[in-house]
Amino acid sequence: MNPEFIHTYVSVDCVVFGFDYENRLNILLVQRHVENMPVDSQKKLPGSLIFSDEDVDDAANRVMYELTGIKKMVLKQFKCFADPARASNQNDIKWMGTEYKHNIDRIITVAYLALCKIDHKINSSKYDTVDWHPIDKVPQLPFDHNQIINESLIEIRKWMETDFSIIFELLPKKFTIRMLYQLYSAVSEKKIDIKNFHKKISSFNYIIQMEEIEQNVSHRAARYYRFDPKIYKKTHNKLIK
Amino acid sequence: MNPEFIHTYVSVDCVVFGFDYENRLNILLVQRHVENMPVDSQKKLPGSLIFSDEDVDDAANRVMYELTGIKKMVLKQFKCFADPARASNQNDIKWMGTEYKHNIDRIITVAYLALCKIDHKINSSKYDTVDWHPIDKVPQLPFDHNQIINESLIEIRKWMETDFSIIFELLPKKFTIRMLYQLYSAVSEKKIDIKNFHKKISSFNYIIQMEEIEQNVSHRAARYYRFDPKIYKKTHNKLIK
Repeated sequence: MNPEFIHTYVSVDCVVFGFDYENRLNILLVQRHVENMPVDSQKKLPGSLIFSDEDVDDAANRVMYELTGIKKMVLKQFKCFADPARASNQNDIKWMGTEYKHNIDRIITVAYLALCKIDHKINSSKYDTVDWHPIDKVPQLPFDHNQIINESLIEIRKWMETDFSIIFELLPKKFTIRMLYQLYSAVSEKKIDIKNFHKKISSFNYIIQMEEIEQNVSHRAARYYRFDPKIYKKTHNKLIK
Repeated sequence: MNPEFIHTYVSVDCVVFGFDYENRLNILLVQRHVENMPVDSQKKLPGSLIFSDEDVDDAANRVMYELTGIKKMVLKQFKCFADPARASNQNDIKWMGTEYKHNIDRIITVAYLALCKIDHKINSSKYDTVDWHPIDKVPQLPFDHNQIINESLIEIRKWMETDFSIIFELLPKKFTIRMLYQLYSAVSEKKIDIKNFHKKISSFNYIIQMEEIEQNVSHRAARYYRFDPKIYKKTHNKLIK
């Protein structure tokens, strides 16, 4: 064999997005265990090496199920990360040795985006600690996990531009326009004016006004809306119709 | 080591799109050599195993350079294909043995989309035979290359919806609206009316009418247009502005 070609382990890593009650974008991190390292510096993205009889999509679904207990989640493969130096940090090598009982020389990972309603109960069969972290307060993570998160944000933006309906995967079933606005603003790069946003949204016939209004809020109670996926499918925006 | 985890070779494969003079979408295929197999059943997508010090994007750029002699091409990673059975055909195993001098048990591939102006001279340093094939006349290919091509079509559609400017990577610098229409129709799933298309296109201020008209054509000579990337950048369509 030409020794120049790599023979490598392959993993999947998942960036799971949620939208919290303070209207911030969050992601799920899990705890890894490395001896003699402070606990608060051991967060990582949920992930796993893939099995010999497994496709990467199956591995990502397995990771998501072990992580959340939820069987079907909106999950999207977005990029393979294969920098030769991505697993060269000594702490990461040590952790892989403990976790996988082997010295792993090189590892490439296939990254996935997942969308989760934050009020969904997280019931992990694998991890003791699974926590939501606001996206702007993610600590320094092992491997290239911070880079993966940064690129996942670019990806979710693009995804929302192509298919606006994915935004409703992150919202509760009934939501106010303010919640929708704040989620859109959290994902988008640009600030947008709330009046323009209202106007635009009111032209989307798949966002349905409900009878119900907010209860027990300190500000003026806002009306709830819901998303109608059937109407969306019919009227889905194409560049050229 | 837990024997359930895979340790595998990794390759990149490139689907290179071009748009020909008969207004058809084409892709580039290369010739592989397998003993006792008819030559016409040995086409494949251009690709390579990745080197031990190489990232996948670098490998894809190398493949594209070895394939075309062109240093900078529009190239986009779109999916990792990792079906455990994707390299289990006996002819494919035999070819890998000859090409890479080793028995390869499993191989995952990272697929890329590339866009090429078809009048660009293809100057391959690696392959004797590099040919354009109309997308609807692609023969049976090895591995999962037919599936990769099918999924690349879905991807190029999405890409065009998110960023319409990529369509101009496939057109000559000056083009008629008919050429643009036929390329758009070849990529899109849905048939669109040419009158509506004309109307829509005339609202795009980044498509600039030129003085020049077609020469030596049997039909009525049409006007040429060009794409202005600077204006496009300024006015790039967002769902919500």
